[in-house]
Amino acid sequence: MLAKVYVTLKTGVLDPQGKAIHHAAETIGYQGVADVRQGKYFEIKLDPAMDETEARAQIEKFAHDVLSNPVIEDYRVEIVK
Amino acid sequence: MLAKVYVTLKTGVLDPQGKAIHHAAETIGYQGVADVRQGKYFEIKLDPAMDETEARAQIEKFAHDVLSNPVIEDYRVEIVK
Repeated sequence: MLAKVYVTLKTGVLDPQGKAIHHAAETIGYQGVADVRQGKYFEIKLDPAMDETEARAQIEKFAHDVLSNPVIEDYRVEIVK
Repeated sequence: MLAKVYVTLKTGVLDPQGKAIHHAAETIGYQGVADVRQGKYFEIKLDPAMDETEARAQIEKFAHDVLSNPVIEDYRVEIVK
């Protein structure tokens, strides 16, 4: 079983890294890019013996406590087989 | 229109950051975590006038040339409305 965790900055939080990428895109000629936001992505391999509800609860807590800073970041958890 | 780009290390490429997170998970008592891999995640807001095929082609090229290092990383592009 695999858990995917996406961590993104909350709306309104300044993202200088995203701004730099946006600027680079414009400089080298990519048209039509209106904004870029950078986030983090985690793939967490889980013990296959775990049931999905338990896995989700554990990974939600892990994402909240360890993988993200809940003051400025949001996270989303996806469980795939 | 929004493009989501996921950049992950290729299988076999060592991921020290992921290893550190895995170790932290074990230390603070998360059971059942078998492995952690860290990647990057980008949300790219696009000009709504663009058509989807053109947008995908442009973002695929941008992901290959700018957002990832194709020697050690894979990328995946998703276009959402």
